[in-house]
Formats: sequence, structure tokens, C-alpha cells
Amino acid sequence: AAGIPIFGLDALSSAAYGPEAALTLLIPLGLMGVREIVPITAAILILLVILYFSYSQTIEAYPHGGGSFTVASENLGDGAGLLAAAALMIDYVLTAAVGISAGVGALISAVPSLQPHTLAICLGILVLLTLVNLRGVHDTGLVFLIPTYLFIGTMIVVIGLGFFHVVVTGGHPAPVDAPPKLPPATEALTLWLLLKVFSSGCTAMTGVEAVSNGVMAFREPTTKNAKRSLTIIIALLLVLLAGIAGLCRFYGIGATDPTGTGYQSVLSQLTAAVAGRGWFYYVTIGSILLVLALSANTAFADFPRLTRAIALKNYLPHVFILRGRRLLYSHGIIALVGFTATLLILFGGVTDRLIPLYAIGAFLAFTLSQAGMVMHWRRNKGKGSTARMCINGLGAVATGITLLVVLVAKFVAGAWVTALLIPCLILVMMAVHKHYRKVAAETASHEPLRVDNLRPPLVIIPLDRWSRITEKGLRFALMMSQEVIAVHVDSTEAGETGRSICDDWNTEVLEPIRKAKLTEPKLVTLKSPYRFVLQPLMEFVLQAEKQDESRQIAVLVPELVVKHWWENLLHNQRANVLKLMLLLRGSRRIVVINIPWYLDRG
Amino acid sequence: AAGIPIFGLDALSSAAYGPEAALTLLIPLGLMGVREIVPITAAILILLVILYFSYSQTIEAYPHGGGSFTVASENLGDGAGLLAAAALMIDYVLTAAVGISAGVGALISAVPSLQPHTLAICLGILVLLTLVNLRGVHDTGLVFLIPTYLFIGTMIVVIGLGFFHVVVTGGHPAPVDAPPKLPPATEALTLWLLLKVFSSGCTAMTGVEAVSNGVMAFREPTTKNAKRSLTIIIALLLVLLAGIAGLCRFYGIGATDPTGTGYQSVLSQLTAAVAGRGWFYYVTIGSILLVLALSANTAFADFPRLTRAIALKNYLPHVFILRGRRLLYSHGIIALVGFTATLLILFGGVTDRLIPLYAIGAFLAFTLSQAGMVMHWRRNKGKGSTARMCINGLGAVATGITLLVVLVAKFVAGAWVTALLIPCLILVMMAVHKHYRKVAAETASHEPLRVDNLRPPLVIIPLDRWSRITEKGLRFALMMSQEVIAVHVDSTEAGETGRSICDDWNTEVLEPIRKAKLTEPKLVTLKSPYRFVLQPLMEFVLQAEKQDESRQIAVLVPELVVKHWWENLLHNQRANVLKLMLLLRGSRRIVVINIPWYLDRG
Ligand SMILES: [K+]
Ligand SMILES: [K+]
Ligand SMILES: [K+]
Ligand SMILES: [K+]
Ligand SMILES: [K+]
Ligand SMILES: [K+]
Repeated sequence: AAGIPIFGLDALSSAAYGPEAALTLLIPLGLMGVREIVPITAAILILLVILYFSYSQTIEAYPHGGGSFTVASENLGDGAGLLAAAALMIDYVLTAAVGISAGVGALISAVPSLQPHTLAICLGILVLLTLVNLRGVHDTGLVFLIPTYLFIGTMIVVIGLGFFHVVVTGGHPAPVDAPPKLPPATEALTLWLLLKVFSSGCTAMTGVEAVSNGVMAFREPTTKNAKRSLTIIIALLLVLLAGIAGLCRFYGIGATDPTGTGYQSVLSQLTAAVAGRGWFYYVTIGSILLVLALSANTAFADFPRLTRAIALKNYLPHVFILRGRRLLYSHGIIALVGFTATLLILFGGVTDRLIPLYAIGAFLAFTLSQAGMVMHWRRNKGKGSTARMCINGLGAVATGITLLVVLVAKFVAGAWVTALLIPCLILVMMAVHKHYRKVAAETASHEPLRVDNLRPPLVIIPLDRWSRITEKGLRFALMMSQEVIAVHVDSTEAGETGRSICDDWNTEVLEPIRKAKLTEPKLVTLKSPYRFVLQPLMEFVLQAEKQDESRQIAVLVPELVVKHWWENLLHNQRANVLKLMLLLRGSRRIVVINIPWYLDRG
Repeated sequence: AAGIPIFGLDALSSAAYGPEAALTLLIPLGLMGVREIVPITAAILILLVILYFSYSQTIEAYPHGGGSFTVASENLGDGAGLLAAAALMIDYVLTAAVGISAGVGALISAVPSLQPHTLAICLGILVLLTLVNLRGVHDTGLVFLIPTYLFIGTMIVVIGLGFFHVVVTGGHPAPVDAPPKLPPATEALTLWLLLKVFSSGCTAMTGVEAVSNGVMAFREPTTKNAKRSLTIIIALLLVLLAGIAGLCRFYGIGATDPTGTGYQSVLSQLTAAVAGRGWFYYVTIGSILLVLALSANTAFADFPRLTRAIALKNYLPHVFILRGRRLLYSHGIIALVGFTATLLILFGGVTDRLIPLYAIGAFLAFTLSQAGMVMHWRRNKGKGSTARMCINGLGAVATGITLLVVLVAKFVAGAWVTALLIPCLILVMMAVHKHYRKVAAETASHEPLRVDNLRPPLVIIPLDRWSRITEKGLRFALMMSQEVIAVHVDSTEAGETGRSICDDWNTEVLEPIRKAKLTEPKLVTLKSPYRFVLQPLMEFVLQAEKQDESRQIAVLVPELVVKHWWENLLHNQRANVLKLMLLLRGSRRIVVINIPWYLDRG
């Protein structure tokens, strides 16, 4: 049961917003609407049980971890894998966004004066999570353990105490702290509304796949331990969801306007109604806030792992494979934070607006995972494989239908965002893949090294005047090749004077070279009006390139390297500009070499 | 007289804000205050006549252009030159800022509903001027000619018609369109107030130095033509200033609150009072707006020329010397626009707040220029040089006293900004100069080229796997040196597989080299966990550097060069990071060479 705090967080914390998401849509039905939460929850619980059996089988079949991306790519092909990848990325981003926003919802229920600062607090928590994760905290067991058990414990006390009152009062408990009065009904019950309520309520199931993702992290026997944890987690979730629905029904607790000033989360109303607003209330709310924030934190572990897996298949930039300092996949973390912040800002940190986006991503991932399992059993025939295929088939059909219901019922409310994002993500991933394939094809070589024509390159070195920088550059040129051309661009304007390399060429360069009987470098002077230096140089290099089609050309640019960034403002970035220009206009035979001369250094 | 539109713009346009600047300070005196404009203007006219004689002499002495920076540096030394440089930079920035803000002031007098958008319109005009100047308009003669003559013409019509009415009505003209009633007096006249009024009014003289800056641009005989233009410009300015002051006195026109909603510029009130608000009024206001905007434009030509001159003496970054595309000194233009925009934003585009800053800069430049001329005549003794020295001495004393008056009277109102900026600018220029001196001293070489130890460098080339990119890099390495070490960093994690250079080294590299009987390169494999590639490579290079203290080391980094910027996101920027790391930690003996491999190119 050691896995429950870590792998149960995501699923169990969903109890804090799933039922509320359903109740929010029932607001227009008034008190009558609250009664509908019971049959809706019953339907959700049935789906949850189906998912339980389905994922139990995934655990057995994938003892090294069977995330949707793995299961879908392996069994349904790359296309389904990409679809699962896009769905999961969105799912993880929303796990972070909804975890944070729902946690802040709990906080502002307890301290209503914070309500105008909802978004700021959400972003503050996001920054906190980012800093903690970029520092790379490893031993977080205890941090997860205490809030999770506190959350489960307090919720069970609330549910137990609540039903005790219900039983004692014959079904008419008196709330200790009365919930806000339900508004009068303004709409009638329709099937369409029930479908929408069910779609929203389904977010209560998000996160149940966590155990199957991380089977390999359990102690031996891993499969058995993982299955036991899954059983406990689903059982607890069933109890929480059923208990919350039942108590709402008996206490007459509905959702409040999620953007209004009098907002009270359902769990806050429930706790206050059952146990009053004493210390127990604040401990409960505190544990809810912590558990939701920690469930957001699970995305910080899962998202970078997912992007790494996708990048390993060349569908995302390879930076996602690299580990930064502290061994973190920091690019993945940064991408997650960017997307999460964008969503929180776009939707004002209001959970209710994020729910439709979340449901689509989660159920698409569920469906692909279950469909993949069906194919898995078809391929790996064996004892009981037909029965297993049927169970996963049931799961696939159930989640698939739910997905369709969610897509249709929630399209206008926000599911369109996800429905649009998924193809966009897939297009990006395909473009990335295409690029890597193209580069691999273009650069692949099945021929051995060509050893013909290995004579040293023609070295061209632009020189301004004689200095230690010039000397270093020239020495390097002479080391590289016997054929060196020094180019001086004379850009002085009429009336200007000044010493140039031409004045010192004979005494400082040629004399020592003649004495040592080395090959003499050539000096070429290019006249240029208007202080243009780079253009004439460029033309000269391109001309030289044309003259000998088989020749490598090395352009040596001696450059000053300063100590402080601001000192760079004082020196023309000619070396860099020249390099860029030759990159743009030159051919593969031209190589630009900066010869650095460090100021203040030996 | 062809020089009047171009060289007279700056001076003549000052009539649009100088008198108003004085009148604004007289508001608290009510109607009584308006009378004081006459003696104040008289004092200003006397100073203007002194400046006329002074600058006539500068024109004669400096037929190639005698700007304050030139005159002060040549005659008073580098210190005074720097002071003049700082004063002039500020003067030009304020020429732009005040020209724009006063032009917008005229516009909102005619169309009061635009008043809330003052700053936005100011910045819009600045953007327009910037675009026009960055495009490099050359033949702008006509653009300057028409508005300037229209401005002079309409103003002379207003003044002539006004005085006709004054004479006809015996000194009590009836305004066609009555100016806003003057508020009752709330203060008494003090000498202190008169000093402040005089200080503000002195901005009416700014820009008279333009002819002396640009003598060389006049037709032969340049000196004579320049002097004639100066005479005409100053005469016109005298007429305008005297006329405006006199008519304000007779029509009882004062300034209005420059930040209030009912703002009406003095020239707008005057034109409306003399000629009514018909088409003539709008033509006049239009010509004022145009002339003021064009006077701001003169700063776009002068400021970059000034910064270039300062940079040529190594007191500003050398980028100011460079000409960009279209032969413009675009860095100077960008600096001017940055400063002007900052001032406009800080002071809300209100002319009245900018006046104190302007006066200081302009009069400091005047004083240094005249003092420089005094030294000039002392050194260049000749016929009449004593008399000339006396005239420039009078100019220096008069402008110097005015400078002190402005500094004291306007210190709190804003002169402190300029008084603080000038030493800051001087400190920056001195720091720049010190840096260039240091670099020159450190890199200067009076020794001839050392030709000892010119053996080719040790080449280290990191290789990942065999590809065309690898082949190109390796070929270049073999061209450069007989001693080549290929380094493979093996960063595969447990369970990962993949072909590396090690698998192909023998067949693809060594075999052809052995066949051709060339020196074999060495292959070194460095084991690295966690996909770190750069650190082990760095350590290896630094180690090699230590082993042979006399050896040059070339690190060759074969790199892929992509076509589109976004493709860079898909490739690890290892080459650049490695270069940066070696720049920071390596010595002068290490050179990093990127061997580019262009995608999609031959
Ligand atoms: K959650
Ligand atoms: K969840
Ligand atoms: K999730
Ligand atoms: K002006
Ligand atoms: K001016
Ligand atoms: K000026």
C-alpha cells in the first residue's frame, strides 16, 4: 500500500472537483437538480468499475509500465501512438491546471476575501511547484504520505459522520453550518442536460491510469502489489464519490456560481454542514488544498517523461531527451509550466472552465489505451485471452462512448479547444519527425572517408593593422596552410589618416618569414568607400571560392574577446556578422574560424 | 538665400515656443503679466544681436563648419570638448522633443478634441520621422522650402495685419476671434519671477548656431553666402519675436495652462484674434505644425553626425562610425529616437516641461563655442583679431551669464535633469575612451611576427556517428594537421542501443587512411552517464591543453546548418555551448572551429 500516496493522488484528488463539476451544471434546476446527482454518480461509479477491471489487466500485461502512449503505439501503430501522445500531453497539462485551480477554489471557500486574487494565487502555486521541481527534490515520500492520508481520513470522517446524522434523523439531518440556499429552479430537466452533467462528472475518474503507468516502481512482486494498490485506490474513490453524492442529496447541497463572489466549493459546504466551521473544517480544507497541489505536481514528473519518450521516437525536439543540471528533463518542465500558465491565464484560474478540456484529453487517452489492450490480447493468444479481450473491449467501448458524449455535450463549452489542439500537436509532431528523417537521409553516409585532395585549405585572413591580435591570427594561418592571403580593406575616407597593416607588412611580417625561409603570405588591399568592410571581403572570398572548385577555403577572423558583456557594445561584431553572411551565401567549401584574443588573460 | 529653409528651420521655428514659454510663467500675474513680455523680449533681442555678431565670426573662422564640439575641442582642449559634446547631444535630443511637442501643441489648439491623445500623437510623429530618416531621404529641398516660406509668410501677414489694426484703432484693436480671458492676478511681480521668465524665453534663440555648423554646405563663396543667410535668418527671427510680443501686449493675449483641457497656443490665439478662424487660420496652424516637425527632423541629421565625430575620437562606441545600409549612420538615429521617446514619455509630450532642459543644453553649447572662439583669436593673432576677440568675448560672457541664470532660475523646474545628465554622459564617454585606450595598449605590438613553433595544431574532433557531416569534419581535420584525435562521448543509458562512430571507425575511416598511407587519427571513447556530453569533452580538451604547454589546440565541431530559424530548435546547440564554455575556461591556445554542413545545399 506504499504506492497509494504517490499513485493514488491523481485519482483520489479528482473527488474534490468531479462531483462539483456535475453539480455546477445542475444549478439551474435548483433543489430538484441536487437529487439528480445520485443517479449520475451511479453511472460514473459503474464506468469506474469497468475501468478498474480494464486497468488491472493492463498492469498484468505491462509489468514495465503501460502508459497510453506505450500501449497505443505498440498495439495500434504510430498514428494511434501520436494521437495518444497528444491526448496525454493535454491530459497532463490539465492535471496541473485543474489541480491548482481546484486547490485555490478550496482556499477561497475558507477565506472568501482572497477570491479576487484567484488567478494570482494559482500562478503563485505554479511558480512554487516549478521552483521545487527545477531544484529536483527526490525523497518526497513523506511529503506525499501525510497530506494524502489526512485527506482520506478527514473525508471518511465527514462521510461517516454525515451518514450517521442522516440515519439518526431519519433522512433529514440538520446542518451544523447551513449551506447557501439553493436558487429557485429556472430550467426543466432534459436528457441533454443529463448528458452534459455526466460528461463533467466523468472528470472524477481522471488519474486512475497512474498505477498502470508506474507498475515498475512497485516492490516485488510488482504486478501483485500494483494491482492491490489499484484495488484500494478505486475502492476509496468509489466510497468518496458515493459518499459525497449521497450527502449532497440529503443535506441539499448544490454547487455555487464558480465565478461569483459568494463561491463555496461543494466539499467546503459539506464539511461545514456536517462538522461546522471549527478546527476540523480548516484541517480538512488544508488537506484538500495540499492534495490538489500535489496532484498537480504529479504532472511535473509525468509530462517530461512523456515528452522524452516521444522525442526518443523523433516526434519532438531532441532537447526533451537531454538532462539538464540535477539530472532533470528541464525542457519538459518548462514546456509544462508554459502551457499550464497559458491555460490558467486564459481561463482565469476557474476550474469549471477547464473541466471540458480535461475530460476530452483524459477519455481519449483511456479509449486508446483500452483499444490497444484489445489488440494486445488478439495478438498474444493464450489461456483466458478471449475473456481479457472482452473486458478491455468493454472498457474501450464504455470510455469511447463517454468520449463521444463529452465531445458532443461539451463542444461549445470548451471541448473544442482540446479538439483543435490535438490535431495541431499531431501536425507539429509529424513536421518534427519529417525534419529528422530528412536530415538523417541527407546526412547518412554509407561510403568510407574520401582521402583524395587532402591538401591544406586556402586561408584568407582579414587584417586591419598590426597588433598582437593580428599576430596570433597570422600565426594560426601559417600553421594551417602554406597558402595564406591577408586581405586589408581600406575604408578610410578622404582626409583620414592612420596606420594600417600595409605600413607594417614588410618589416613585421615578410622580413621574419624570409629569414626563416617560409612560404610568404600574400597581402591584398581592397579599396572601399563609405567604411563598408564586410561587403568587399565577402566578394573577395566568394571570388576565391569560384576560382578553384575543388579547394577548401578557411576564413580566419582574429577577434577580441572581452570580459564584460557591455564591453561587447564597444566592439564591432564583424566576426559574427561575417560568419553569418558566409553561412547565408557561401558554399560548403567555406569555413569561418574565429581566432579569439582574450583581453586580460594569458 | 537657398540655405534659409534648411539652416533657418531650427532657429525660426523657435518663435513658436520661445515667447509662449515666457508667457506661461507670467500667467499668475494676469493681464499685468502680459505687459511684461515687451521688456523681456527686448532683453532677448539684445542677446540675439550679440549672438549674431559672434556667430558671424565663427563662420569666417571655420569655413569647413564650426560646431560647438569642433570649436571647443580645438581651442579649449578635450575636457571642454567633452562638455560641449554632452551639451550638444542633449541639445539635439531636445530639439527633436520640443519640435514635436510644440507642433502637437499647435495641432491641439486647432482641434481641441485631440488633447487627451497628446503623447500618442507626439510618439506617432516621432515614429514617422524615424521611418523617413531610416529610409534615407536625400532630395528634401522642396519639402523644407514650402513649409518654411509658408510659415514665414503667414506669420508676417499676421504681424502686419495685427499692427495695421493696432495703428488704425489707436492701440485698442478688437480681436476677430476673442482669446480666452486672462485669469485674475494671483501673484505680484518679483525680480526672481522676471529671471525665470527670461530664462524660459531664451529658448527662442535655440538653433541660431545651425548656419555656423554647416558653412561648408553653402555655395561658393561659402563664407559670404553663409553670413548672408545668417543675417536674413536672425533678422526674420527678430521681426517674428518682436511682432509676437507686441501683438500679445496690444491684444491682451497670454498663455493658457499647458496641461489644461482648454489649452490654446499663443500663436493660435494670435492668429485667431487677428484674422479669425477661417481658412487662413488653418493654413497658418498647418505651417506651424510642419515647420516644427521639420525642425525636429534637423536633429536626425545633426545628432548622428555628432556621435560619429565623438566616436572617431574614441569617446563613443565605434558602431556610431559605421554606416549601415543606405549609407546612414543608423546607430546614431536609433540612439536619438530612444532618448527623444524617453523624454516625451517622461514629460507627457508637454513642451512647457521640456523647456528648462532645452535651455541648459543650448546655452552651455553657446557659451563653450564662444569661449572657444575667444581662444581662437588669441592664438591666431592678425588684423582685427583683438576686436574679434572682444565680440566673441561679449558673446561668451552674455551667454555664460544667461546659462547661470537659467541654471539657477530653472533648477527645480527641470534644469537639474540636464545638470545631472551632462556629468553622466561625460563619465560614460570617459569610460569608453579608457576602454579603447586599454585595448589598444594591450594589443599593440611593436615586435615582428614570431615564426618559431609553427607546427600544425593538435586537432580534437568530437564525433557521434558516421555521417556526411562527420566525414566533412574529419576531412578538414586531416587537412589541417597530422595529429587528429576523434573523441566519442558514449552517453547511452542502460538498455539503449544504436550505432556509434566506434562501430564504423575501422571500416569507414581507418581502412581508406591505411590504404592511402596517411597518418592515422586516434579514436578516444569517453564514458558518460546521464547523457552529459559537453562536460567530459571539456575535461578532455583542458587535459590535452595542460599536457603540452606550447601546443595550439583546435577543437573542430562539425555542425548542421539548417535553413529556417525554427529548425534550430530541433538541433542541440552543442557547438555553440561548447564554444562558449571553452571561451570561458580555455586559454589562448584553444581555438574552436565550427565546420558547417548545410542542409539542402551543395
Ligand atoms: K487531480
Ligand atoms: K485527476
Ligand atoms: K491525469
Ligand atoms: K525647433
Ligand atoms: K530650436
Ligand atoms: K538646436
